[in-house]
Amino acid sequence: MKKLFLLFIIFTTSTMLAQIERIEPPFWYAGMHNPELQILVYGKNIAKYTVSTSNAIPLSKVEKTENPNYLFVTINTENVSPQDFSLIFKEKDKLAFTHKYSLKQRREDSANRKGFDASDMLYLIMPDRFSNGKKNNDSDISTKEKNNRALPGGRHGGDIQGIINHLDYIEELGATTIWSTPLCEDNDAQYSYHTYGQSDVYKIDPRYGTNEDYVRLSSEMHQRKMKLVMDYVTNHWGIEHWMMKDLPTQDWFNYIGNYTETNHKRTVIHDIHASELDKKKCIDGWFVPSMPDINIKNPLVLKYLTQNAIWWIEYADLDGFRVDTYNYSDPHGIALWTKSITDEYPNFNIVGEVWMFNQSHAAYWQKDSKIAAIQNFNSNLPSVMDFTLLGAINSAFNEDEASWDKGMIKIYDNFTNDFLFPNPDNILIFAENHDTHRINHMFNNDLNKYKMAMALLATTRGIPQLYYGSEIGMAGNKDKGDADIRQDFPGGWDGDSNNAFTAAGRTEMQNEYFNFTSKLFNWRKTKTVIHSGKMTHYIPENNVYVYFRYDAEQAVMILINNSRETKTIKTNRFQENIGNYKMGKDVITEKIMDVTSEITLEPKSVLILELK
Amino acid sequence: MKKLFLLFIIFTTSTMLAQIERIEPPFWYAGMHNPELQILVYGKNIAKYTVSTSNAIPLSKVEKTENPNYLFVTINTENVSPQDFSLIFKEKDKLAFTHKYSLKQRREDSANRKGFDASDMLYLIMPDRFSNGKKNNDSDISTKEKNNRALPGGRHGGDIQGIINHLDYIEELGATTIWSTPLCEDNDAQYSYHTYGQSDVYKIDPRYGTNEDYVRLSSEMHQRKMKLVMDYVTNHWGIEHWMMKDLPTQDWFNYIGNYTETNHKRTVIHDIHASELDKKKCIDGWFVPSMPDINIKNPLVLKYLTQNAIWWIEYADLDGFRVDTYNYSDPHGIALWTKSITDEYPNFNIVGEVWMFNQSHAAYWQKDSKIAAIQNFNSNLPSVMDFTLLGAINSAFNEDEASWDKGMIKIYDNFTNDFLFPNPDNILIFAENHDTHRINHMFNNDLNKYKMAMALLATTRGIPQLYYGSEIGMAGNKDKGDADIRQDFPGGWDGDSNNAFTAAGRTEMQNEYFNFTSKLFNWRKTKTVIHSGKMTHYIPENNVYVYFRYDAEQAVMILINNSRETKTIKTNRFQENIGNYKMGKDVITEKIMDVTSEITLEPKSVLILELK
Repeated sequence: MKKLFLLFIIFTTSTMLAQIERIEPPFWYAGMHNPELQILVYGKNIAKYTVSTSNAIPLSKVEKTENPNYLFVTINTENVSPQDFSLIFKEKDKLAFTHKYSLKQRREDSANRKGFDASDMLYLIMPDRFSNGKKNNDSDISTKEKNNRALPGGRHGGDIQGIINHLDYIEELGATTIWSTPLCEDNDAQYSYHTYGQSDVYKIDPRYGTNEDYVRLSSEMHQRKMKLVMDYVTNHWGIEHWMMKDLPTQDWFNYIGNYTETNHKRTVIHDIHASELDKKKCIDGWFVPSMPDINIKNPLVLKYLTQNAIWWIEYADLDGFRVDTYNYSDPHGIALWTKSITDEYPNFNIVGEVWMFNQSHAAYWQKDSKIAAIQNFNSNLPSVMDFTLLGAINSAFNEDEASWDKGMIKIYDNFTNDFLFPNPDNILIFAENHDTHRINHMFNNDLNKYKMAMALLATTRGIPQLYYGSEIGMAGNKDKGDADIRQDFPGGWDGDSNNAFTAAGRTEMQNEYFNFTSKLFNWRKTKTVIHSGKMTHYIPENNVYVYFRYDAEQAVMILINNSRETKTIKTNRFQENIGNYKMGKDVITEKIMDVTSEITLEPKSVLILELK
Repeated sequence: MKKLFLLFIIFTTSTMLAQIERIEPPFWYAGMHNPELQILVYGKNIAKYTVSTSNAIPLSKVEKTENPNYLFVTINTENVSPQDFSLIFKEKDKLAFTHKYSLKQRREDSANRKGFDASDMLYLIMPDRFSNGKKNNDSDISTKEKNNRALPGGRHGGDIQGIINHLDYIEELGATTIWSTPLCEDNDAQYSYHTYGQSDVYKIDPRYGTNEDYVRLSSEMHQRKMKLVMDYVTNHWGIEHWMMKDLPTQDWFNYIGNYTETNHKRTVIHDIHASELDKKKCIDGWFVPSMPDINIKNPLVLKYLTQNAIWWIEYADLDGFRVDTYNYSDPHGIALWTKSITDEYPNFNIVGEVWMFNQSHAAYWQKDSKIAAIQNFNSNLPSVMDFTLLGAINSAFNEDEASWDKGMIKIYDNFTNDFLFPNPDNILIFAENHDTHRINHMFNNDLNKYKMAMALLATTRGIPQLYYGSEIGMAGNKDKGDADIRQDFPGGWDGDSNNAFTAAGRTEMQNEYFNFTSKLFNWRKTKTVIHSGKMTHYIPENNVYVYFRYDAEQAVMILINNSRETKTIKTNRFQENIGNYKMGKDVITEKIMDVTSEITLEPKSVLILELK
């Protein structure tokens, strides 16, 4: 009898599968913290069926929307062991078809996975522009835009295999972690390499590879004790997203049928004087006409996005998220999304793109912010990005003359506001990313300025992030368009005349950039005093900034001379930090010098002295 | 027998009075909230005497310092009625001399005096530069610097009588409150008109008048229902202060014998990375060599300053303090000073000069700040100054072209941070003061820009403050030196060819400035919707800023067109505020216009529409 029923199941599943076009998540995991699993079932007139489950899996609810092609089936997985079971679809009490669904076994200790932190260095890659590891996926039959490396904003062919092929290089550089821009399918007809306008968030874009390739990247990185950070987009999908062609609900996206652009004024969120209209436009408005704005206020949407994010963590064994345009979403919705993830993974790290120009605004968005608490808000977001430091770095090192608000004082000032942040150590720090000028452009290819900036990122508080290619001196001017700051990494394509992935292939100048960066960040890897030590800094004088990182066992003294003159610094001013230390060993040159009296600094230079 | 004793007292008092050079406070008041009164007794070798009190006044303690010329006698005035009593000084149990001390009757309801607030407009006067009401006090035998009107930084002769003489003018202007820069004696040999380097904080400088003159100013103002704000300096006195010639304690002032200037970096106070050295220099360092920095950490000093402040409130019947360089003092000391005053006068207002460039820093210093609470700090300071708005006003109205960070967006941005302040209505707002460029200089004497700035100050949240003379178009360039921004008010001196105190005496242009200002601020006097109404503003578009003040009964719509073009604004965007209102009456021109569809704005102009 059982056998007969099984046969029947197989028969109906196979014959009736066409009823279901999509099931999302495609599978799930047993033993999650939140036992409620919302399964989206999409198929022509699917809503006419009643749904039940096999294996006595408890069914919490089945929700229909105004679109009969959708069903949202919620099951309770509490105390359910890993297993396959069936979703049973009936019409008028008569079995119509079934669908097998898997609750898989989680990786051991998956819930306690530790995210990236200040002991890491993140290497930001745009996969289309890094390296073409597989030539047979440069174009794909299922996606519109075809390979065209000649087109600055076109698809150049970089892929996951290209990253995997160069993990040695990335490790040698001193990076511990990769953050790649999004990899899920973006089926836009043009500019799809950018991949922030995704068309299917459960599927790696075929031009980058497969879901399995992404898992393989993760696995190969973990074998090297490296970490993988996924770029997650909660605010918008692409205009080609499959749901845009058959909306689950009229409010799944904002401003449907009434295109309205965001005003980009994220300050409306905390502004007590803001008009309701301005608030709505900011949060619900679209970025561009090709990116429908997701309505996270809809609980079905919120749950969909939450599960998708958790699915990727579990499936691809992730070590963190970078969340795009974090504070363009409904604040309470995005806070719930974030909390759901950190409830599942208390030690996971998520860094939000909160592109603000005032530290009180950035601090507002970090978990347990006292500033947000003024408005009874808590984003639950563990980490934010230090965009004010980005601004300071980009201008300060170009300012040779000191004044009350120029030069190193800008860098110093940035850190004086750390009291505003609940956790200043868990802030992403960077000199550039894929949306800004490249730092070597800002510095007009001045290696000395680059060295000062990198030394700062490597030794101050926070989690340093580098942007692919700058470590070999790549420059790019955003004013010329995004393509200029997202050029192909030399050596990433067969036939590239310059292969910067190897010392032999690099030019002399590229090696100067690379060797400095590599030495610095490899040194940083094991320096717990940098990862978690205290920091004391001194008001810059004459464009010289001096600060210390220290704990009970170690101390590092950093001196940055941003002026064009040789400076001799008397060290008695720093007595409270130098204490009984007598000597300092420079991390880069390994020269040892006396720190008890004075230290001489070359123009536009930095010393990182391990004190002895 | 009693009579005999009295005669004895009189005899000893009169013959031995020379023993006491100073008693401070010179008298006190019965029935204060804090019953502990610390009386400083200064005289040659005064410490050799034992002290007791007549009338069974409880003596709490008598403190000596390392300087035998000082005694600090603390009595407890709890439940003591107003009376005269004696301080009895004995040497080896033998009566040496006595000193009469008065506990006076307080004014009725003195403790509940209400300070200035958002219903007020403060008129800031530098007394030496406003009007010379009494010529016989232009120089004084007791003070070094003599009158010299020809000297830009010299004493020009303005005085308290000069202010009293022009209260009609000030009232006509629409001011409700006067804040004058300090009036206590400053016996510096030069630059003493500035008066922030005081030599005796219990005595009005004789060149301004007498203590009684100051009380008379207060009294005459109160008869007009106007308010008087004293400029109090807690951070420093003048080098000629009498205590500097015979230090009560070696730590009465900071860095005695080791002159060290402040580094002016007030951010060290909340900077979690700041070095102890930088903190100490900021707080304890001197402003300039002529201004010894007061050590408020010493409890004797703190009590001295607290009582001096309270004494002036009680004696001169004050309505508020403006406190100079508020956050250059030890934070805990200044917070205690402030709390002591507001404990005595819960409805009194105190505005601190916290000259910061980030609203989170300014907000840190306002009473009950959630930002300061991050560091378990509470300044207790009711009001702070909006220096970021000053910066925005000074640049924005000169920016004709809109951009994401230019023009009206700067003004708008300023108010988006009001959530950081515990009480945004109790913030002093201003376009200039005695330490900045004059606004008419910044605006290159463009009346239209002046009108926009004044309209903004008159209608946004906060307490507007004007600076004497700008209302008749006075300009001044700080780059030329302080004297240029502190010129004599025309008509304040006999023989002035231009008398701007009267319509007839003013030039046509002066009348244009004055009439606008007067109309605006006289209108404001009774507009409760401006004093305490809510505010909603809209993101500026094309350099046009629109905001509303409203309550249950009234609504005012303010439109500022900062562009050089005529703008026609569609009003449907503002529907949430316009509601059912149909018409608006412009406060200045009294023109009535339809607000249901569109409103036309002249280039560089403002409309203040009372909605009907």
